[in-house]
Amino acid sequence: MRAGYLGPKATFTDIAVQNAFPDVERIAYTTIPDCFKAVKNKEVDMAIVPFENALEGSVHLTTDYLFHETNPPIRAEIIVPIQQHLMVHPMQYNKWNEVERILSHPHALAQCHKFLHQQFRGVTLEQMTSTAAAAKYVSEHPESNMAAIANELAAEKYNLQIVKENIHDYDFNHTRFIVLAHNDTEILPSLTSTYEKTTIMVTLPSDRAGSLHQVLSAFAWRKINLSKIESRPLKTGLGHYFFMIDINQTYEDQLVKNAIEEIESLGCQVKILGSYFSYHTQK
Amino acid sequence: MRAGYLGPKATFTDIAVQNAFPDVERIAYTTIPDCFKAVKNKEVDMAIVPFENALEGSVHLTTDYLFHETNPPIRAEIIVPIQQHLMVHPMQYNKWNEVERILSHPHALAQCHKFLHQQFRGVTLEQMTSTAAAAKYVSEHPESNMAAIANELAAEKYNLQIVKENIHDYDFNHTRFIVLAHNDTEILPSLTSTYEKTTIMVTLPSDRAGSLHQVLSAFAWRKINLSKIESRPLKTGLGHYFFMIDINQTYEDQLVKNAIEEIESLGCQVKILGSYFSYHTQK
Repeated sequence: MRAGYLGPKATFTDIAVQNAFPDVERIAYTTIPDCFKAVKNKEVDMAIVPFENALEGSVHLTTDYLFHETNPPIRAEIIVPIQQHLMVHPMQYNKWNEVERILSHPHALAQCHKFLHQQFRGVTLEQMTSTAAAAKYVSEHPESNMAAIANELAAEKYNLQIVKENIHDYDFNHTRFIVLAHNDTEILPSLTSTYEKTTIMVTLPSDRAGSLHQVLSAFAWRKINLSKIESRPLKTGLGHYFFMIDINQTYEDQLVKNAIEEIESLGCQVKILGSYFSYHTQK
Repeated sequence: MRAGYLGPKATFTDIAVQNAFPDVERIAYTTIPDCFKAVKNKEVDMAIVPFENALEGSVHLTTDYLFHETNPPIRAEIIVPIQQHLMVHPMQYNKWNEVERILSHPHALAQCHKFLHQQFRGVTLEQMTSTAAAAKYVSEHPESNMAAIANELAAEKYNLQIVKENIHDYDFNHTRFIVLAHNDTEILPSLTSTYEKTTIMVTLPSDRAGSLHQVLSAFAWRKINLSKIESRPLKTGLGHYFFMIDINQTYEDQLVKNAIEEIESLGCQVKILGSYFSYHTQK
């Protein structure tokens, strides 16, 4: 079993894969579209990409790719807590509180804003393409007195020493990752799930006001709970959007099927991205 | 009259200001929060920042700042067509189709993807913080055979020569800019407006399913048309959102007032960002 994920090694996506599928062969890809293509062309059995962060919101590249391209369905989601640590090269261990530069992904730097402001005011912050890339860079420059902000796996992988644990400002920060795989591939996460959900994308008829209200009515009177509704540009001009909706039930429920059928009868286009179980990891 | 805008000079925000307010003194700020702070502290009479692009979607920094901070109201929106041109230093004019590097903002590079793929395949693309910064950099390095992708104003401002006009892939691409100003400041754009709108932000009660449907119902049965609804994370945990809603009417309409009153009675928190006219510029 082979899993393609958004690399490099030791990203938070890598953590999601290792927690959910400890026995698969993991293949790192450079971009989110590369992950989608790899599973579509069956280079890998499944692809794992980030979908939404509690602070930054949806990952638009993932959302837009799901809408505009034909892909295998979403077969699972994995929710991972985002825990950031400050780490240095072992050669710099004694001087860690005098670091001159701190490297990380811009989101990670933002997530540790208060800590950095209090403990490292005035230190140069440098943006890297991922937290793992920052850790790798620090490991390759042992002579420089600098630190990376990254996860525990990156510290292990790149032989860095964690000097301050859990420096992120908010404890509730999580990221949702999705697992895409063809229907004939058996997906067996080594976690237990608490609930099942369905994600659909809806394009409203352009010529009628109040269409979104009609769509929500189809769910509301059936008491089908929606956990998310988000608009994204259709890329055909200002004011044209599609909607991504998360339904807290499986598509197999007759009421969900009927609601979707009726939404289509109203003139909406509906794309079902998948019905899948949601898994939480402890770290 | 002083207008603070997202700089440097010759950004698309600068174009928006020059088109709408040709006679004001323009003051460039480095970041969107700096523009907000400048108008809040009355360093300037109004602030102009980007709010939404037809291809890339909302500018999250602007949306989040409008939600989380107390600001002067939105007093106008300015919609500007996004026209990208390829430009070089006059010293490199004869060799422009052999450029080795092309510099621009990542969104501009993405907006000219097809052109670049067809005419400059293999040429290094370099990301800059704005299209204007790319033009400035090219102007400062006359000896290098490189080009910038930027707007007409940047070519003028930094004395660059446009070698290919309108290289953007889609003609319908526009950006919405908003004008923030205190209520006692008189805003007189030199454009004519076609319509008025109201923008509100709504936080739903956390303990009740179907609340968004109720909110939309309050507008739907009154036949109040909504031109946009978008969710953003509340930054309190996955699955918690607020909603930004654009209403195609002024808040002065009794029906709009009543709808908002009822939404508040349902337990929602409503923040009214402003009722304002929408202005389109030709270029």
